[in-house]
Amino acid sequence: MGENTQHYFEGVEKLVEVWFKQPPMDDEADLRRITKEVWDEELKAVKCEIISFTKNSEVDAYVLSESSMFVSKRRWILKTCGTTTPLNCLKPLMKMAAEMGFVEISDFFYSRKNFARPELQLFPHRMFCEEVKFLDTIFEGGQTYCLGQINKDCWYLYTLSQPERELKGELIELPKIEGKHHSEPDQTIEILMENLDPQVMQVFTKLCCQDGKEATVKSKINEILPDMIIDDFLFEPCGYSMNGINQLGEYMTIHITPEKEFSYVSFESNVSMANYAELIQRVLATFLPAKFIITIFANKSSEAYATMRELETTSYSQWQRADMQCCNFPSYNLLFATYTANNRGENDC
Amino acid sequence: MGENTQHYFEGVEKLVEVWFKQPPMDDEADLRRITKEVWDEELKAVKCEIISFTKNSEVDAYVLSESSMFVSKRRWILKTCGTTTPLNCLKPLMKMAAEMGFVEISDFFYSRKNFARPELQLFPHRMFCEEVKFLDTIFEGGQTYCLGQINKDCWYLYTLSQPERELKGELIELPKIEGKHHSEPDQTIEILMENLDPQVMQVFTKLCCQDGKEATVKSKINEILPDMIIDDFLFEPCGYSMNGINQLGEYMTIHITPEKEFSYVSFESNVSMANYAELIQRVLATFLPAKFIITIFANKSSEAYATMRELETTSYSQWQRADMQCCNFPSYNLLFATYTANNRGENDC
Repeated sequence: MGENTQHYFEGVEKLVEVWFKQPPMDDEADLRRITKEVWDEELKAVKCEIISFTKNSEVDAYVLSESSMFVSKRRWILKTCGTTTPLNCLKPLMKMAAEMGFVEISDFFYSRKNFARPELQLFPHRMFCEEVKFLDTIFEGGQTYCLGQINKDCWYLYTLSQPERELKGELIELPKIEGKHHSEPDQTIEILMENLDPQVMQVFTKLCCQDGKEATVKSKINEILPDMIIDDFLFEPCGYSMNGINQLGEYMTIHITPEKEFSYVSFESNVSMANYAELIQRVLATFLPAKFIITIFANKSSEAYATMRELETTSYSQWQRADMQCCNFPSYNLLFATYTANNRGENDC
Repeated sequence: MGENTQHYFEGVEKLVEVWFKQPPMDDEADLRRITKEVWDEELKAVKCEIISFTKNSEVDAYVLSESSMFVSKRRWILKTCGTTTPLNCLKPLMKMAAEMGFVEISDFFYSRKNFARPELQLFPHRMFCEEVKFLDTIFEGGQTYCLGQINKDCWYLYTLSQPERELKGELIELPKIEGKHHSEPDQTIEILMENLDPQVMQVFTKLCCQDGKEATVKSKINEILPDMIIDDFLFEPCGYSMNGINQLGEYMTIHITPEKEFSYVSFESNVSMANYAELIQRVLATFLPAKFIITIFANKSSEAYATMRELETTSYSQWQRADMQCCNFPSYNLLFATYTANNRGENDC
């Protein structure tokens, strides 16, 4: 890819998810005590800003100038697109968390799709190996993976994980692994879509809609997971972000880069389901991508854990699967799959 | 790793496997018509030599100065270690094959573990991306994967594969996929072992054994797959290679770099089994590695295809699993797993 000075926006997000171990002597310790004013300051290092905020009893949900942040009692999720630098926020987060008693991280995930224009990114995000080197200055024993095809459509993951100890046929986990693994079901599905239907994308412009609310209803995003309370934002002249949260503490988040030349939509949720096939179908029907990646994490307590493999045999009439991989981590299973439309037009890549 | 001028040998092999489509009008076309004298010449480009040769009605098996070559009617396998350059033999092979009517490749696999000392390798093997670039000058649509952890213990794969076409819930393969996929069961297991038991490795030196035959019996390699007719070779002052072939046309091959500082043993076979657990157990008991990688390919006609996942729940008393990944390719499933010894000593890495 040569130099290109035309307008370009990298829709692909960098996604950080940190789970702290609840301090044993302090059940009141809560990451949500960090105020919006403090986050306003800390997010400067990431090069993004808070533009909207909602909350319920379980989770604080921030819409950012580039994507989203979700803060719950001991989990922190930061997802930012463009040329933001979310890893710069990690050390400040850990310092703030430690001050309120969160001194141990029980799980850590950093992931992203390959960038379309990596040369536009800033340190430490210019290459995955640079991100790994940066994370290795913070963590010990990080594990790094590339799913999908190297240097083509792929998805990078950095995670902290303890090996299993196997004894007499039973899986015994090392003592250090604890926290949510057995007590708290957890699952995350992401659908990362490219080359989307131009008519659908038109909805997410100020030419077509006045505000986020109108775009949400017109696109039927509000019907994807109907129990979610939605906080949406339509950017000038185009672009859309939404967070949804429900009373179970579950979230969903969608971010849309509608420009035809580099259209990109991401869907993410931790909603608990035994089978994601119908949800995936609804997301695909909403956005009509020419290609997409699905990733599903599910821990051993999650009802999705046992059934996520059913997806291997699920077919989508308009799309064909190009790649499918499954990783077994000590406490999580990860499913990764890529699909492309059967009726690929000239504009599809 | 800094510069090191001490004696070093890269045991890690580069493995090329090519399946040609049988010419429809010529069932007599056979790669084994290429004579040993021609291979002597062609293998100069790989920087290795033939040192022993056996055959049966199904397969020609060559022991090389660096590892092995197996030639059957329409399949060619070249596995070479050290600083050899096996990809240099691909174009000459394809030219020779085309002259006898093999004009279409139905399957292609190039794979290897990460090198311990990549800086010692020669073009085009200095980096995986260099190998990919080289292969891309020969093939269109190659797919590249990195299993395991990037830049740590990982295993690279370049393969030619057609996407599946899914229709009404049934898997319909594209017309171009043919040949062995449905007619001929195929499976390959590799066990790549490092940091092996020094006492076991002692067997594979001229200090301990006079020749390959003695080392084969002393180490009980001949008991791993007892129906194999073995062609073995013990190098001066140390190092060992063996090929085994049986009347079904199945092969096994073992290559041993015994030096304590960089000990490495590879086991490979295409023997057909519904469950490889016992075979793996025998190989591990023979060599006692501190760490190892297992890869299993099985196509849809193979009896190993459905059962290879049982391995996910198989435990080995002395080793714990560090990573496990599964890939679904159009006609093959691939299982990849890494293990380390529970009782890791100071010399283990």
